[in-house]
Amino acid sequence: MSTPWIHRYAQRTQRMTSSMIRELLKLIAQPDLISFAGGLPAPELFPVEEIKEAVETVLTIKGAKALQYSTTEGYPPLRDMLVRHMKRYGIVVDIDNVLITSGSQQALDLIGKILINTGDKILTEHPSYLGAIQAFTMYGADYVTVPIDDDGVIPESLEVGLRAGPKFMYLLPNFQNPTGVTISAGRRRELVLLADRYGIPIIEDDPYGQLRYEGDHIKPLVVIDAECLECQHNGRYSGNVIYMSTFSKTLAPGLRLGWIVAPKEVIHRLVQAKQGTDLHSSTIDQMVAYEVGRGGFIDRHVQHLREVYGNRRKVMLDALARAFPDPSLGVRWTRPQGGLFLWIELPDWMDTSELLKTAVKEKVAFVPGTPFYPNGGGRNTMRLNFSYGTEAMIEEGIARLGRVVTQQIARRNAAVAAVGDTITT
Amino acid sequence: MSTPWIHRYAQRTQRMTSSMIRELLKLIAQPDLISFAGGLPAPELFPVEEIKEAVETVLTIKGAKALQYSTTEGYPPLRDMLVRHMKRYGIVVDIDNVLITSGSQQALDLIGKILINTGDKILTEHPSYLGAIQAFTMYGADYVTVPIDDDGVIPESLEVGLRAGPKFMYLLPNFQNPTGVTISAGRRRELVLLADRYGIPIIEDDPYGQLRYEGDHIKPLVVIDAECLECQHNGRYSGNVIYMSTFSKTLAPGLRLGWIVAPKEVIHRLVQAKQGTDLHSSTIDQMVAYEVGRGGFIDRHVQHLREVYGNRRKVMLDALARAFPDPSLGVRWTRPQGGLFLWIELPDWMDTSELLKTAVKEKVAFVPGTPFYPNGGGRNTMRLNFSYGTEAMIEEGIARLGRVVTQQIARRNAAVAAVGDTITT
Repeated sequence: MSTPWIHRYAQRTQRMTSSMIRELLKLIAQPDLISFAGGLPAPELFPVEEIKEAVETVLTIKGAKALQYSTTEGYPPLRDMLVRHMKRYGIVVDIDNVLITSGSQQALDLIGKILINTGDKILTEHPSYLGAIQAFTMYGADYVTVPIDDDGVIPESLEVGLRAGPKFMYLLPNFQNPTGVTISAGRRRELVLLADRYGIPIIEDDPYGQLRYEGDHIKPLVVIDAECLECQHNGRYSGNVIYMSTFSKTLAPGLRLGWIVAPKEVIHRLVQAKQGTDLHSSTIDQMVAYEVGRGGFIDRHVQHLREVYGNRRKVMLDALARAFPDPSLGVRWTRPQGGLFLWIELPDWMDTSELLKTAVKEKVAFVPGTPFYPNGGGRNTMRLNFSYGTEAMIEEGIARLGRVVTQQIARRNAAVAAVGDTITT
Repeated sequence: MSTPWIHRYAQRTQRMTSSMIRELLKLIAQPDLISFAGGLPAPELFPVEEIKEAVETVLTIKGAKALQYSTTEGYPPLRDMLVRHMKRYGIVVDIDNVLITSGSQQALDLIGKILINTGDKILTEHPSYLGAIQAFTMYGADYVTVPIDDDGVIPESLEVGLRAGPKFMYLLPNFQNPTGVTISAGRRRELVLLADRYGIPIIEDDPYGQLRYEGDHIKPLVVIDAECLECQHNGRYSGNVIYMSTFSKTLAPGLRLGWIVAPKEVIHRLVQAKQGTDLHSSTIDQMVAYEVGRGGFIDRHVQHLREVYGNRRKVMLDALARAFPDPSLGVRWTRPQGGLFLWIELPDWMDTSELLKTAVKEKVAFVPGTPFYPNGGGRNTMRLNFSYGTEAMIEEGIARLGRVVTQQIARRNAAVAAVGDTITT
């Protein structure tokens, strides 16, 4: 068994770090371990019966058409349904602005494929979504990272980043993965103006926008850009923002269906790229998504998801307040208004990759924050998912994790005190 | 509406030629036109009822699991089924050598992604499969092309090509798309030895291997390489050949399912690349393919396809013999032993892109050969598909096409004669 050539050849993947999360998911596959590490929607909420009915209908009515090759752009009734759906959120586009992708991961890949050349700088939030970093890094991206606070990316820092000449900004305005942070309405307007002034496009990744559990909906960047008078777009879809979303969180991730909204000339390039990538997304899965969605079922289903996930989020926040050390000890976490994740910062001296080993022994797991920082950092951070576990699991898991963190801090404080004693005596 | 940045940015797609076939398929969407242009399997043969039953079973038994995220490598029972299936053809591998892809187009994309850097040379047959050229060109490939004859790629020419230092060879040994030509057993051995001697891996693309209508099965390159004593591989899977195939021709293309066989360390890189590309292929579609295939249905179905497609091929060959000009006039075509396509060469002075316009007026269409030549050429060639149309359509379509070609040749001969008259008088 020898394939010497692969070591000479596979430069792209050599540059990729082996996915930490992936290795981790293997480690934590223990039945009695409570994992907050995944990013999975709750499977017990999947509309299995509705999908079963939809497949039956599609194969009865469409027959062989559901199994044949189809157009790269995607199933027209599905794209049309998305146009109507997005209109309610103020995104006014037509069907030729919409490309169906094989999950939003493919949207990221196609954007990387048409836009990134080796050495190009991409501006991201600090931290940002790991899947995007993986997709862009395959095309040789370097990163300009911009710090965020509880209102999202900080405009003054963003402008500093823009001066570094990034090719585009990649932003997750709603309940960002990994932090759960949302960019405020005021900042959204500021950053759209900055993007326009610097002539740098924005990729707006919005997988969770519909999963808001409190507060009011905030206009997406793509709408603010279209309405921007200073940018002279006159309330029409203008094209400095590429918007993307997915059915993975509102219907089912196993179907691998997402979509991109972009100006027609950008869609044209993305279609060329997708043609060489997988020809088109599964014909039958697209027809099923349309069949399930066309009567309004997905809207009703999302209402239900909001309720269940909203409760789980509340249970996690309450459990954190009970089980975690006091903020005065350098421990803080975000309070996301939606989405699937929250984010914890521990004292500077802590290393969550090390902490994870102890946590796994105590039968609880999370994702250490470092892989979300393309330029390094975040050793003392972690991401917790609150959509997958039941409320009881969340309470128990946070209690376990709280004990682990509390013990580590107590041990360190004791050690510091002992050193202090040694020095003073 | 202005997106000036896209023109500055999208270098990769600028290099791609807009897909000629794609544009063409729009042109020929007329109800009474007989098209040999597509590469579509016959939809009336799709096992709609079997797939309907399989989806019902999968959603009943697997439930939410069929709709959840799943592993990048693919559904283990499906990979295991493929291992058993391939064993019958002498490909002895285990499950860790198999990666499920979103159609074999994605296999080509992932191979390009991990192996090709801008300016790398890739060796292909001349002509070769358009989809591979599209996938590889996105990563900046240049091409070393090797002529073929009725026994496939010519070893002497191949060796000349290998001296140019290509990164890998991309070959379609069985009923090649576009020509229908098969590489003979003797040549397969020669080229495996050459690959070994020059240390250059082979990508063996085999979408049609099971669709053989006459003659005996010929060992795949991956088997010859494994058995090669001179290469000292001792009858084990050695890894100088990456093998790929698909469910698109034997089950249904709309599911977008293919697979790659490669050494584990290559699979590892491909998995990393796929993770950044689309996370994984549709969970439910993979489970359905397994459910349909596990009891042996696909084998029985392939028997049926062989019979129908074999007859259609015979009808097309007979019709060509009746309707097309005599070989002495510089017209010749291949006699494929399997697959979906045959290939016609017309006299040197003919341009099939021009001819197509006339043909469309006569309500018949084909694919001009030029897009299959990555370094140019083939102006006088065309590809015909014989799997999609019924026997009656094939007879009528070839009769129409024969008239168009015969008329063009007669007109030219008359013109040449007139010029001759002018000169001699």
